[in-house]
Amino acid sequence: MIVHEEQPFNAESGLAALAETLTATDAFYVRAHGDVPDIDPVAWRLKVHGAVEHELELSLATLREVFEDREVTATLQCAGNRRAGLIAIRDIPGEAPWGPGATGTATWTGVALADVLSLAGPLGEAQHVGFVGADVSPEATPAQRFGGSIPLYKASRREVLLAWAMNGEPLPPVHGAPVRVVVPGYIGARSVKWLEQIEVRSTPWPGYFQNVVYRLLPEDGTPGAGEGMSLGLVALNSDVVSPADGETVPAGPVEVRGYAFAGGERYVSRVDVSLDGGAAWSSAELIDDLGPWAWRHWRIMVDLAPGDHEIVVRAWDSSAATQPENEAALWNPKGYVNNARPRVRVRVIPDRPRQAM
Amino acid sequence: MIVHEEQPFNAESGLAALAETLTATDAFYVRAHGDVPDIDPVAWRLKVHGAVEHELELSLATLREVFEDREVTATLQCAGNRRAGLIAIRDIPGEAPWGPGATGTATWTGVALADVLSLAGPLGEAQHVGFVGADVSPEATPAQRFGGSIPLYKASRREVLLAWAMNGEPLPPVHGAPVRVVVPGYIGARSVKWLEQIEVRSTPWPGYFQNVVYRLLPEDGTPGAGEGMSLGLVALNSDVVSPADGETVPAGPVEVRGYAFAGGERYVSRVDVSLDGGAAWSSAELIDDLGPWAWRHWRIMVDLAPGDHEIVVRAWDSSAATQPENEAALWNPKGYVNNARPRVRVRVIPDRPRQAM
Repeated sequence: MIVHEEQPFNAESGLAALAETLTATDAFYVRAHGDVPDIDPVAWRLKVHGAVEHELELSLATLREVFEDREVTATLQCAGNRRAGLIAIRDIPGEAPWGPGATGTATWTGVALADVLSLAGPLGEAQHVGFVGADVSPEATPAQRFGGSIPLYKASRREVLLAWAMNGEPLPPVHGAPVRVVVPGYIGARSVKWLEQIEVRSTPWPGYFQNVVYRLLPEDGTPGAGEGMSLGLVALNSDVVSPADGETVPAGPVEVRGYAFAGGERYVSRVDVSLDGGAAWSSAELIDDLGPWAWRHWRIMVDLAPGDHEIVVRAWDSSAATQPENEAALWNPKGYVNNARPRVRVRVIPDRPRQAM
Repeated sequence: MIVHEEQPFNAESGLAALAETLTATDAFYVRAHGDVPDIDPVAWRLKVHGAVEHELELSLATLREVFEDREVTATLQCAGNRRAGLIAIRDIPGEAPWGPGATGTATWTGVALADVLSLAGPLGEAQHVGFVGADVSPEATPAQRFGGSIPLYKASRREVLLAWAMNGEPLPPVHGAPVRVVVPGYIGARSVKWLEQIEVRSTPWPGYFQNVVYRLLPEDGTPGAGEGMSLGLVALNSDVVSPADGETVPAGPVEVRGYAFAGGERYVSRVDVSLDGGAAWSSAELIDDLGPWAWRHWRIMVDLAPGDHEIVVRAWDSSAATQPENEAALWNPKGYVNNARPRVRVRVIPDRPRQAM
């Protein structure tokens, strides 16, 4: 993994891990704003409160016994994925230069948040469902627990999980043990780790990590309470995982591979690759359909002659929307949502001498 | 209205009509592939069949008596909206050069399709809901009735109507009387007019208007059964309704106005305007929120000095996705889904002499 910060631990998947359609747990990106909290799973309780008929306090054993198990294969993607491309346009002080590896796909096991909410009984004014983790972040002043909310209509859909397992194994501490939220199609920040409280609310989460950060500002904006647009759904995105940017490859047929993710309830409908800067495009093969909540990997064989080449990619979603062309137009003060067409530059060398000179 | 074809009648709204956030019925765009059928509303029956427990045959009176009335304000948008911009890149023979007026917003009254489907009882294999109109189109060989389908999960949502009124008045013949489907967030072609049959199916609609046309082809593709991607959700789009492209305006403050529409379940979160080709942007004011299924109008005052100017616009949706830059990259053989940043050119003349010369 490529480590961006040791404490709290923040790291992204390398290209080899991203080339697998299901991401191995030990190679799955970690984004955290505070240290991994030390939680005794036996003493752990999940409190459900706020605009509900019945407050709940559930042990892990109760959660697992009372509600039906569900398994969902879902991609998580940090809003800062591919920020490095924006930093290359203009520096973004204080933000880590995440590459294309702040995303990954796992099979998550847990219970439907909707089932827990049904038991609590949201009141008429309920519109949002907030999550509070056990992790305390010094990024806010004063320090506060990480938290965020999603709209009640999304929280009521059965793909949103309170998960205790990842790829068939108990959730590791760094990924939120004993229980994390998994909100498919939403930015990773809403899949709150080390979950301790669920608060049903009439308004969106007012905490630092939703009201100040994880918001898209205009290019000349300044972070502040309520400034910019709150991020939620993941925007259509893609990247190339092979060849690597700057790689040298032998001339001839080269397999280009990558991922694409549509976010929300959309799916990836096409991925195109261009070798001439975007004038002519060829459609890649979409492989390994993991269902509606997961990215789609793609591949295409291209024939490359010796010389320097740039490979440009654009994904399309099920609304027939495609990615914006250039990163420069997407620069924003926190470096979120770089979903411009990915570009990798490769140097192609002659494959082998055809005959002795 | 700007008439593209007299028979069948096809016409788009002019800029003045588009400047209203609710579009007047007599200024609302009309897209049809066959002549307006002559339907006796008393003899009219809606047949519901296919993968259902109970076939239904409903008169208009029964439809209105049995089910609860619903009213939804929704934007319809033709997949060919703004095709003129693609034709300007390269001709698209046989397709009308629709400008920005193949879209409009009305208040629709009818019953929830979901309620009718509940009464029919979709069987386990049901995945799609097809609609057949009474209009016969000679565009298919042999001629066939217009039809199309939407996924059952969308058909089950309460915003999808079988509508008999538009803006509080009975649906006019040209807009589908006595009953049309209204599928908010989907391309207009799915809001089938002159509805006569609903067929619950395991597969998408196999007819010409879904399996051959209303599909996005690659630039070098050829229309054919199953070729390209089936269109459904409307892609994020916007356009300028004032000033008009090519207009001459006096120097000084100029109000720029337009619409933006996010499609599907997304909403418009920001609209930016640039006067320097996209280097610097200012955010417009979003006005008249008509709810989740309607476009959003926007306005901004800009100060224009004498000379030639280009105004460029980009909308953002609730996933923080924005429009692609250039129409050239979106050209496709049927001219669908031009959702590139709109651009209008204006000539600015000195406002008035400041003093006698």
